[in-house]
Amino acid sequence: MKIEIITVGDEILIGQIIDTNSAWMAAELTREGFEIVAITTVGDQAQNIIRALDTAFSRADVLLMTGGIGPTKDDITKKTLCNYFNTDLIFDESVFQNINRLFAHKNYKLNELTKNQAFVPKDCTVIQNKAGTAPLLWFEQKGKILVSMPGVPFEMKVAITGEIIPRLRKQFLSIDYLKSSFLVSGITESALAILLEDFEAKLPGNFSLAYLPSYGLIRLRLSAWGKENLSEMEFQEGRLRETLHEVLVADGDQPLEALLGEALRSNNLTVSTAESCTGGSIAHRITLVPGASAYYKGSVISYDNTVKTSMLDVDSKSIETYGAVSREVVEQMAQNVSEKLKTDCSIAVSGIAGPDGGTLEKPVGTVWICTRMHNETVTQKYQFGTSREENINRTTNMAILQMIKMLKKYKKPF
Amino acid sequence: MKIEIITVGDEILIGQIIDTNSAWMAAELTREGFEIVAITTVGDQAQNIIRALDTAFSRADVLLMTGGIGPTKDDITKKTLCNYFNTDLIFDESVFQNINRLFAHKNYKLNELTKNQAFVPKDCTVIQNKAGTAPLLWFEQKGKILVSMPGVPFEMKVAITGEIIPRLRKQFLSIDYLKSSFLVSGITESALAILLEDFEAKLPGNFSLAYLPSYGLIRLRLSAWGKENLSEMEFQEGRLRETLHEVLVADGDQPLEALLGEALRSNNLTVSTAESCTGGSIAHRITLVPGASAYYKGSVISYDNTVKTSMLDVDSKSIETYGAVSREVVEQMAQNVSEKLKTDCSIAVSGIAGPDGGTLEKPVGTVWICTRMHNETVTQKYQFGTSREENINRTTNMAILQMIKMLKKYKKPF
Repeated sequence: MKIEIITVGDEILIGQIIDTNSAWMAAELTREGFEIVAITTVGDQAQNIIRALDTAFSRADVLLMTGGIGPTKDDITKKTLCNYFNTDLIFDESVFQNINRLFAHKNYKLNELTKNQAFVPKDCTVIQNKAGTAPLLWFEQKGKILVSMPGVPFEMKVAITGEIIPRLRKQFLSIDYLKSSFLVSGITESALAILLEDFEAKLPGNFSLAYLPSYGLIRLRLSAWGKENLSEMEFQEGRLRETLHEVLVADGDQPLEALLGEALRSNNLTVSTAESCTGGSIAHRITLVPGASAYYKGSVISYDNTVKTSMLDVDSKSIETYGAVSREVVEQMAQNVSEKLKTDCSIAVSGIAGPDGGTLEKPVGTVWICTRMHNETVTQKYQFGTSREENINRTTNMAILQMIKMLKKYKKPF
Repeated sequence: MKIEIITVGDEILIGQIIDTNSAWMAAELTREGFEIVAITTVGDQAQNIIRALDTAFSRADVLLMTGGIGPTKDDITKKTLCNYFNTDLIFDESVFQNINRLFAHKNYKLNELTKNQAFVPKDCTVIQNKAGTAPLLWFEQKGKILVSMPGVPFEMKVAITGEIIPRLRKQFLSIDYLKSSFLVSGITESALAILLEDFEAKLPGNFSLAYLPSYGLIRLRLSAWGKENLSEMEFQEGRLRETLHEVLVADGDQPLEALLGEALRSNNLTVSTAESCTGGSIAHRITLVPGASAYYKGSVISYDNTVKTSMLDVDSKSIETYGAVSREVVEQMAQNVSEKLKTDCSIAVSGIAGPDGGTLEKPVGTVWICTRMHNETVTQKYQFGTSREENINRTTNMAILQMIKMLKKYKKPF
């Protein structure tokens, strides 16, 4: 069974937004053992949508469409699908009730256009949208399937996970996609490729190894299709782990912040943060993990130097003597935030994100990171690039990673 | 003249990477006055590439292909194009010299795989790649054009800007793309559509209006092709602005945090934040803006209630009596953070992001936001949804927006 993803929306064709929906769907569906043959984006014009459907049905069995089903005039997907499948719109009471329920929860007033969302094509299975007003429309014709769903990322995700994947699983055999991920750090992509030269040369032809670098980290993906490769996969995983050795951070696809959460939780430890150049990015990443309140207490973001002294009791003489971006200051930040917020561990960073603020001695991208656990500290200087966004993201990754590494070595209770 | 973008690469179909190349190309080409009719991604298999080419040639005049032309085994685009255009590979001395020049510059050693890059299809125009080893291949047949270029973002960008756009400009008339964006809030998408019903009814047929909703905000895009519509565009912009009136937040495509920065900067005011449920997301967004240190001083992230009392001096009795998610607590947070961090303004939020922590009285998605300027405060309760990610993002947007609105009304100096 082959799937094509179709995204409808002028905003993607003019480059106003990046199509992150398709990437998310592709990753989820692949993990579930379904094969994507193509991803197509077309604009909000009936003839372009119809041509895309014809092409897609010629190469795929299941078409997953997002977008173009809002209540406004520029959204024409529903009407176009009615024409394509030669059917009419009818009023659906269950959809109307779903809309009412959602609007009541948010205290919104129902209007005529929203009520129109309850009109659905007659010849399709209507699936309630648990997260929004536009229902999912599931068409079947000549053994092929087309599902239309909202393009709002959050609604799409709820639909794919909760409705579409379970229904596809019932109807189609999925071929097991075997995949192992490994999180690697402390090595450049090309140096890693050289390290893995022999491993790759001896990898069976039906296995593939992909490199996915991201802000100082590299995710490796070892993959093959078919359950029969399971024992070979295990063997190759072992070889890969052995070759990676010191640069291997963790197995699996979990984000760094979830790995940190696990390490803290399993050791029954709490953490706080003191951020300067990252401006809250570390705290934000840590608190994206559901249940983070079990181990995360809070942060002082001392973006301005006066906040470093007033809220974190950093010695103003240290700032004068060594500068805010220094070992001395970042170590005081780490110690004092853990004392003030009463946490076992702490992460502190101070650096120059750019584009301004760099000097000859401390150019843009200079960052100090201190991680602390009880009375132990690890303090390290990093030199990143010239892009503000890159420096914020790299610092965030390296700071969380440094804390994870410290926790990994921690075994005995204090 | 219509353009289709074709991306070749399994890594996109399995969702390992997001296709940001296409979005960048689409934005550049649109700005230069070229129309994109479709964006297609297919895998590294000859038959899929050929089918995509057939479809693309049926709806577009120019096909811009990226990817699949590296030196390694899995890259098959060049060979497939030879088959498609019925031609052979020949050795090209000028490409070989370009590769040598690049390698000498980087002190790399030339190997057999890289030398193979100098083999190019006989019946095409070869354009040197100024940033990498794989040349650009420009095919023309029956008045239609296909250009194959590298998928490495940096090399692709150099190719598009330096070679492809100038050559397309010589061969085709480009039509100016007129676009105006408007940021709207405080209204649902459907209510906005009703508000704009008359505006849309009277909009000339060659103009279009698109709605892009995102976490409590809606961006409207009014657009038309052709310079001759310039004065009509201005007229329609005026009508739209008048109709939007109170729900219009700002003109243009700037992110909310940049608008906040502008409002603070122009009034010479500083801001601090006190975050609970957003866990640093507001601070992170504010500090994404280059130069934010001119007006942003810092934050206390009081994720745990003990941090609310110890670091922000929130009265523990208020927390006991009203709960941490309450008007009383969030107002104390706002007042105390601005006093402690010595800022003119402050933003404070407290809410229940979920998935846990909700009660019957305060379900998941309940959020209090207080914004403060000198001694004035605005405090508002919001009821968002059930998704943690959505609640964090919506709260962040609404908090920044509430501060912007307060600043907009602010005229006289204190």
